[in-house]
Amino acid sequence: MNFRDQRISEFLEAVASKSPTPGGGAVGAIVAAMGTALVEMVASLTIGKKDYEDYEGEMERVLSEASYRRKRFLELADLDASAFDQVMDAMKLPKDTEDQKKFRTEKLQEALKHASEMPYELAREISKVCPLAEFVNKYGNKNALSDARSASWLLKASFEIAVSNVEINLKLIKDEKFVSKMRESLSAIKGMVDQCFNDSNLDR
Amino acid sequence: MNFRDQRISEFLEAVASKSPTPGGGAVGAIVAAMGTALVEMVASLTIGKKDYEDYEGEMERVLSEASYRRKRFLELADLDASAFDQVMDAMKLPKDTEDQKKFRTEKLQEALKHASEMPYELAREISKVCPLAEFVNKYGNKNALSDARSASWLLKASFEIAVSNVEINLKLIKDEKFVSKMRESLSAIKGMVDQCFNDSNLDR
Repeated sequence: MNFRDQRISEFLEAVASKSPTPGGGAVGAIVAAMGTALVEMVASLTIGKKDYEDYEGEMERVLSEASYRRKRFLELADLDASAFDQVMDAMKLPKDTEDQKKFRTEKLQEALKHASEMPYELAREISKVCPLAEFVNKYGNKNALSDARSASWLLKASFEIAVSNVEINLKLIKDEKFVSKMRESLSAIKGMVDQCFNDSNLDR
Repeated sequence: MNFRDQRISEFLEAVASKSPTPGGGAVGAIVAAMGTALVEMVASLTIGKKDYEDYEGEMERVLSEASYRRKRFLELADLDASAFDQVMDAMKLPKDTEDQKKFRTEKLQEALKHASEMPYELAREISKVCPLAEFVNKYGNKNALSDARSASWLLKASFEIAVSNVEINLKLIKDEKFVSKMRESLSAIKGMVDQCFNDSNLDR
């Protein structure tokens, strides 16, 4: 899969179709990429402007880090869809004999773990981009303030999608150690990101 | 402009660039289309399933309305970007003589009104899709619950973007009657949509 090369209308048709991929996971990653692209735009519209000289160096770093993360989000969209397809494939394995059942369960559990790691990785990446969005909200070109706010809202939506997708997979995973470790890490990320969105003053 | 035919990576590059369009407005409309596509997917994964027979007719209607609205969102993305370009064009008009100044102000005010109507229209369309998302959250296939939640989160983000974009334009419009009428209509839509998202139980 390679969503980056799909036309927007094609991608939307694929999402809307009965096929479960691309679903919320891939869309969430692409929306995170859109939010990050808006962070870059606001940074670009700020750099070189006299009124904003004080933060020029920091703004350059924001631009370069956001640009790097945006590409990562596109990769994650592909990886998320293929991880989900592996779950679907495992579910289709035969379960007529005890051996088959055992093999299917093993494969399915493996695929579910992998499928929970993708949105977890998305959530982790968003936790790194949220402060960049916060920065352009606070110190970016005031003429682009609604774009900065838009960036934060898109990152918030994609974060909620990522969290929801991790949790839905964890519910099906039987390895309790894996689940509790994952929940713990996710909870730490949630704390950071919730704080970041609070600091970004998104309320109307 | 025709975003629907752009590849996702191209569109992202265009957003990230220094050019103010496409900006938050166009991105917001495309994200609304993505949320609506997820509503369609969940409806499709529900229709024809025995456990969900009771709502089959309603689910068919949700699917068909969402499909129609998704196409409208893509149109709005293009219209929003071209409305914003008209504002930028008006700002570039000469203002050396009194006549030029007067002409420029007229053109700019006209363009700003039009630019505020596009995100208003986006907000209005989202107010019609939110109940569809709420419906698939409540009565859709439970296996696709995280996709239904994702749809609502994307619609919420795009609604906040639309509201923010209407307001930023209204601040620059001098026709007080236009502004107060717009604020009143927007406030009514906000009430409906906030209620709809509350009813959708998006909290973690």
